[in-house]
Amino acid sequence: MKLEALRQKVWEINVALPKTGLVMWTSGNASGRDPETNLVVIKPSGVSFDDMTPEDLVVVDLDGNVVEGSLRPSVDTGSHLYVYRHRDDIHGIVHTHSRFATTFAIRGEPIPVHTTTAAALFGGVIPVSDFATIGEEDIGRQIVEKIGGGQVILMRNHGVFTVGKDLGEALKNAVYVEETAEVVYYARLLGPVDTLSDKDIRDAREMYLTSYGQK
Amino acid sequence: MKLEALRQKVWEINVALPKTGLVMWTSGNASGRDPETNLVVIKPSGVSFDDMTPEDLVVVDLDGNVVEGSLRPSVDTGSHLYVYRHRDDIHGIVHTHSRFATTFAIRGEPIPVHTTTAAALFGGVIPVSDFATIGEEDIGRQIVEKIGGGQVILMRNHGVFTVGKDLGEALKNAVYVEETAEVVYYARLLGPVDTLSDKDIRDAREMYLTSYGQK
Amino acid sequence: MKLEALRQKVWEINVALPKTGLVMWTSGNASGRDPETNLVVIKPSGVSFDDMTPEDLVVVDLDGNVVEGSLRPSVDTGSHLYVYRHRDDIHGIVHTHSRFATTFAIRGEPIPVHTTTAAALFGGVIPVSDFATIGEEDIGRQIVEKIGGGQVILMRNHGVFTVGKDLGEALKNAVYVEETAEVVYYARLLGPVDTLSDKDIRDAREMYLTSYGQK
Amino acid sequence: MKLEALRQKVWEINVALPKTGLVMWTSGNASGRDPETNLVVIKPSGVSFDDMTPEDLVVVDLDGNVVEGSLRPSVDTGSHLYVYRHRDDIHGIVHTHSRFATTFAIRGEPIPVHTTTAAALFGGVIPVSDFATIGEEDIGRQIVEKIGGGQVILMRNHGVFTVGKDLGEALKNAVYVEETAEVVYYARLLGPVDTLSDKDIRDAREMYLTSYGQK
Repeated sequence: MKLEALRQKVWEINVALPKTGLVMWTSGNASGRDPETNLVVIKPSGVSFDDMTPEDLVVVDLDGNVVEGSLRPSVDTGSHLYVYRHRDDIHGIVHTHSRFATTFAIRGEPIPVHTTTAAALFGGVIPVSDFATIGEEDIGRQIVEKIGGGQVILMRNHGVFTVGKDLGEALKNAVYVEETAEVVYYARLLGPVDTLSDKDIRDAREMYLTSYGQK
Repeated sequence: MKLEALRQKVWEINVALPKTGLVMWTSGNASGRDPETNLVVIKPSGVSFDDMTPEDLVVVDLDGNVVEGSLRPSVDTGSHLYVYRHRDDIHGIVHTHSRFATTFAIRGEPIPVHTTTAAALFGGVIPVSDFATIGEEDIGRQIVEKIGGGQVILMRNHGVFTVGKDLGEALKNAVYVEETAEVVYYARLLGPVDTLSDKDIRDAREMYLTSYGQK
Repeated sequence: MKLEALRQKVWEINVALPKTGLVMWTSGNASGRDPETNLVVIKPSGVSFDDMTPEDLVVVDLDGNVVEGSLRPSVDTGSHLYVYRHRDDIHGIVHTHSRFATTFAIRGEPIPVHTTTAAALFGGVIPVSDFATIGEEDIGRQIVEKIGGGQVILMRNHGVFTVGKDLGEALKNAVYVEETAEVVYYARLLGPVDTLSDKDIRDAREMYLTSYGQK
Repeated sequence: MKLEALRQKVWEINVALPKTGLVMWTSGNASGRDPETNLVVIKPSGVSFDDMTPEDLVVVDLDGNVVEGSLRPSVDTGSHLYVYRHRDDIHGIVHTHSRFATTFAIRGEPIPVHTTTAAALFGGVIPVSDFATIGEEDIGRQIVEKIGGGQVILMRNHGVFTVGKDLGEALKNAVYVEETAEVVYYARLLGPVDTLSDKDIRDAREMYLTSYGQK
């Protein structure tokens, strides 16, 4: 992928975040990695999504050296890079403070599988990290250590990180984890509620991977 | 109804779904049946509502053979067709994961009649299905078996299906079941709450069928 | 007030209702009374707010005779007229199923004064009616009997009616009762909560009537 | 800062309030102080945000004398001025009735630090005032007395006031306190929940003050 195409894509996904209601003001961020050069394009720190142009995005290499851009990159950059260095299969990361995912992150409770949608999209429980300090690589280490085979992790007392083979998949995960967290939250407020069986989870995941969408 | 008019109508109702807040991303779908030819127009699988054109919709016969369209139809197509084959009076089906209806579907609890609106529109309790596997006809069988005399059914751990004599009626039911589920949810969170009496339900339903709207 | 100006005003307030989130689809309605002729302009029954033109509104006299308009008036018309006949000071009525007001209506619980806003705007507890049948004048009788010195009443298992010296005031009441119901609902879900003292309610109401707004 | 530039800024922030969902109808207000002349620009009383032009704003001196403008200033003007007179470091004040902040204000409960965002932005617990009468300076006295080293205070049974070194900062605080209140509310409804440690709060605050955003 050409760097300029990636820059455009990362910009589009960053500005899509407030429109989906997943972030507000300057919170949250998205980054993407070029699979050929391993260069990473990421949101600048503390900049409003509305004001941000594609040129404001920062390009860094996997060691955090700024390759292009005059703004400071997100304070989460070290953690994004830690994930990219340890997971060759990941080329997009989205971070939000979406409300119901953050509710579970505050409580330190994973989100079990209560819907066919969550079974199809996530294939299992959404895990929650230990508390991690913002800045440096602490969050990144938690992601790599605790995300397991999935693509979503609740960051304790903070928010949610989603990953994907590309940035579009990471955004899709960010949208669906919030919807999932919201309905599970509502359901549990009325009292204990059963989860799907392991077989039903596997069937829904298999259906999603083999039959859903276009070839 | 000419097939092209039906295709346009099914497209309009599909793209109306995200605007009403009932669906997001690629979840949910709507289909309509031509009463003369029994051809069914349905959403393609896994396609975003924003990107979908009327030409992207898929036309199938009641046995599931694709008559027009180059995309794969919804994974729920077999279930829509099962309903159409077993219920001559139904010509439109809407499926959503709207949040409060899904909350009751997760809990496996039917929605009793707590408002004059629900009494008028639905005439009784909204039932909930057994768990059904996505793909093939399992969901369709649950709809036919459990929907009774009504037009709405909560699909266990999944979402909600609504039907109608035409697709507009199915959409109206999808909108009102979500509003109903939301206020009943809020009311019940504060503690037990009485339902309407059978007589009050009958009166409201009768008023709706005989006096409401334009002749 | 000229009848055409009233027609325009009633149309504007009706189409404002879905934009405020207080109503959806064809639910709810607004009417206004001309203080000179006692003619009442009201929403037609079962018509979508989006599709409604000023010409679609129906003009009736206080006995319910249609003076202008080819559509059937709202099924609540008899109740609006009952209120206008019994309360010379009321020239506007708004009816919605707004979610949190309806939540209290389902529970049959009045809304006590927990905020300075509610004290200023309403001056006391929002009462709740007995169950009333839709159609004829049953709802109107409940309004006149139970609304007391206020301008808002929860209609049991149904929704909310607000009145005003003109239709703008009735709309303002419909907007603020929903905001009030929402925050009181949230506060009470966490446990019992104190109300304002009678003195604090009187002070806030007095401030609102004498100092708030423009002369 | 030239007075006309301040007037434009105060107008922009006032009209931004309903767009962020923090206020509705005529509730809430924002003011800004010119650091050179100590003149204060504030919203007129009871005027809809949609209808308000920059010329409708009222300019007052610190004693409350109207310097420019033909409309009556907000009933909260005396309290804004009280804050400006007692706190030289404050040049912007925002007041809203945002729903979840108001929920805690109704309950009279401060908002503890449950998220890294609240730790970074607020650096500690959001305090709640005693009940204050609207009009005159009662609210202002509560703000000065109870806000401590922070920039946000819940006004008991009323709403929330935020301050800043400029009006932009006060708006940012108004947006983030509502997001914070909402997620803390959701988390606590499911049961007791731990707060961040003092060290984690200090670290997040330090990160925010030294590393976040652009130089």
